[in-house]
Amino acid sequence: MPDNYKDYTDEEKKQIVEFDKKMSADNEKLIGLFGAKKLKDMSLPAFYTFKNGLMYSHRDFDVFMERLNKHEKSAIVSGFNPSASIHIGHIGVFDTNLFFQKEYGMDIFVPLSDDESYVSGKIKDQKDGLVNSLKLIRSLIAYGYDKNKTHFIIDQIYTNIYNLAIKLSRGITMSEVKDVYGYTNDQNTGLHFYPAIQSAHVIFPQTLGIRNILVPIGPDEDAHIRVSRDLAPKFGYEKVAVLHSRFMPGFDGDSKMSKSKGNAVFLLDDEKAIKKIVLNAFSGGRASVDEHRKLGGIPEIDISYLYLKYLFLDKDEAEKLYDDYRHGRVLSGEMKKLLLEKVLERTEKFKENYSKVTAKDIKKSIMVNEEIDLDSVIEKLGIFS
Amino acid sequence: MPDNYKDYTDEEKKQIVEFDKKMSADNEKLIGLFGAKKLKDMSLPAFYTFKNGLMYSHRDFDVFMERLNKHEKSAIVSGFNPSASIHIGHIGVFDTNLFFQKEYGMDIFVPLSDDESYVSGKIKDQKDGLVNSLKLIRSLIAYGYDKNKTHFIIDQIYTNIYNLAIKLSRGITMSEVKDVYGYTNDQNTGLHFYPAIQSAHVIFPQTLGIRNILVPIGPDEDAHIRVSRDLAPKFGYEKVAVLHSRFMPGFDGDSKMSKSKGNAVFLLDDEKAIKKIVLNAFSGGRASVDEHRKLGGIPEIDISYLYLKYLFLDKDEAEKLYDDYRHGRVLSGEMKKLLLEKVLERTEKFKENYSKVTAKDIKKSIMVNEEIDLDSVIEKLGIFS
Repeated sequence: MPDNYKDYTDEEKKQIVEFDKKMSADNEKLIGLFGAKKLKDMSLPAFYTFKNGLMYSHRDFDVFMERLNKHEKSAIVSGFNPSASIHIGHIGVFDTNLFFQKEYGMDIFVPLSDDESYVSGKIKDQKDGLVNSLKLIRSLIAYGYDKNKTHFIIDQIYTNIYNLAIKLSRGITMSEVKDVYGYTNDQNTGLHFYPAIQSAHVIFPQTLGIRNILVPIGPDEDAHIRVSRDLAPKFGYEKVAVLHSRFMPGFDGDSKMSKSKGNAVFLLDDEKAIKKIVLNAFSGGRASVDEHRKLGGIPEIDISYLYLKYLFLDKDEAEKLYDDYRHGRVLSGEMKKLLLEKVLERTEKFKENYSKVTAKDIKKSIMVNEEIDLDSVIEKLGIFS
Repeated sequence: MPDNYKDYTDEEKKQIVEFDKKMSADNEKLIGLFGAKKLKDMSLPAFYTFKNGLMYSHRDFDVFMERLNKHEKSAIVSGFNPSASIHIGHIGVFDTNLFFQKEYGMDIFVPLSDDESYVSGKIKDQKDGLVNSLKLIRSLIAYGYDKNKTHFIIDQIYTNIYNLAIKLSRGITMSEVKDVYGYTNDQNTGLHFYPAIQSAHVIFPQTLGIRNILVPIGPDEDAHIRVSRDLAPKFGYEKVAVLHSRFMPGFDGDSKMSKSKGNAVFLLDDEKAIKKIVLNAFSGGRASVDEHRKLGGIPEIDISYLYLKYLFLDKDEAEKLYDDYRHGRVLSGEMKKLLLEKVLERTEKFKENYSKVTAKDIKKSIMVNEEIDLDSVIEKLGIFS
């Protein structure tokens, strides 16, 4: 926080503190109540999402990095629910994943939980889950995921995941499922089983011999990964490391983005829709231009500034912009336009890539059931000896 | 019941009624409480298990037969838990299945619920489930199941069954699972999901276009099949028909056979073990030979007689034996020896066949995941159009 924070009135300071509390409440709870650790207590990768504080807290990320730096084979598991589309709030995690993929040649496993989307009623039927999954794969490859080093798990195609889930399921009681996920008896049994599938997703690379695994998630997913961390040692697997990003706020200043709230920019949205949302973003500007020039804006609660700072500017640029806004040299409208420029640059590039992805590209990275060699299974088990 | 029933004393009559009640309690409950129908109200297939009353009650078996006789493509689903081995009490159902397979060229689907064995803790690990499943397949082919028309579903191999289970799971609430199966929150989530897999097993042939399906079961399994019958129409499938066999009693006179009670003859048991169990069977004979000659035996409660009647003799033979025993012309020891002869004949033949089954035979009838043609999936879904 720059020095001129002390220029704020008490009322403004209160406003800033409350905004910040709302935005990081989920993350702070993990640290206070559930034993996650703040990232700033360790040396961090030289990447923008770590430098700017978008990556917030962790579990065993220090251990993960140590093993990675000793050249141990490592992987990322970073799933997506195929009832949703990718929006601007996701790109911090995507960029982090791609940093590891490029820097360390790391495999990324992307579970697309079409079964969860279906049993939770987020989608109509299993076909929708398949269509949405394939579109997401196209999106992620367009975004930059390396099709040779990314492995998409669509549960209804890679049904072998069921076997690992069944194995692990013997270690999760229904009480735990109900406690952690909050499911009730009037909900369906597929939903109640899904935690076993989710744990299977997270542990899966270990069945391929990759033991050092990182799972980057939002703070709301932590409880679910804790289930997998409790389970893993019971079956001879290791606890995965966890990296918590902060939520990027909605453009209306709400702490969470969602399609239904109309406060998110989706990467496939058209320019007109994006303009409308960005130019109406919740701002830390003053009631009039004159007042803004005189009092200066409040960048701490300005959504456009936060997006620019967390996702699009380097540290020096962000500090200069902070200073200019704080001193009224940059107006809210100018701030929004700057963000719009950056967002459109990213979405245009994305859409161009999206149009170029081919069926062959996406096919390459989809996991399919291994062919079972019954002969050798039978021979190995010695049924006839 | 032959005429001389009236020769029994009141005490003997009471004994007979109680024995019969114990043996058919489960079946009668289905008729009284759960709307199953007695088989005798319809015209029945000309096969021993129907003629002798081993097949007891049903749901829609009349409809099944009508459609079958109109040459509609039909199938049987008849599962087995791979924590158990096949014993003499199973052969009535096996023979019934094979009657349909031979007479009507019918496909038989045999789900081997290795996942249920594992999540219920009946077996140590998934490998055990695989080994036991393969041994069972060998046994059933040795017993006479046609390897070209029988399809074994081992859930950990044919994992595609998970997809159908997930589809159906959205129609079963956790309350239903708890009511029907009696599972509690301290039990694992795999167990709670299994009802969806079981329903998938039963409905599965319909996904291959075979709509007329018969499921022969013991009365204890009826509640589980009722779950699948409730589910089916919600997803555009038909309710399967059900045929309830009676339980064959344990050789000690207990109403159920089990390995742990030591009251069952397993088809792979050696001659010595079989002799021991059969020659110690609970009998309706009298305390001494003289008394037996004088009062006659009570065939209604004589386990050996019941086995002979239900499984090994035709109607005339059974009636003659009844009469001879009832009038003291056949002694208990002689009855047991006759049964032993029949049992050994069957087990010897079975063991001989078992030794001849090859890996190639069993391989042929095991279902494996279909290879997924991603190209055509992608094209069909029009992701790129």
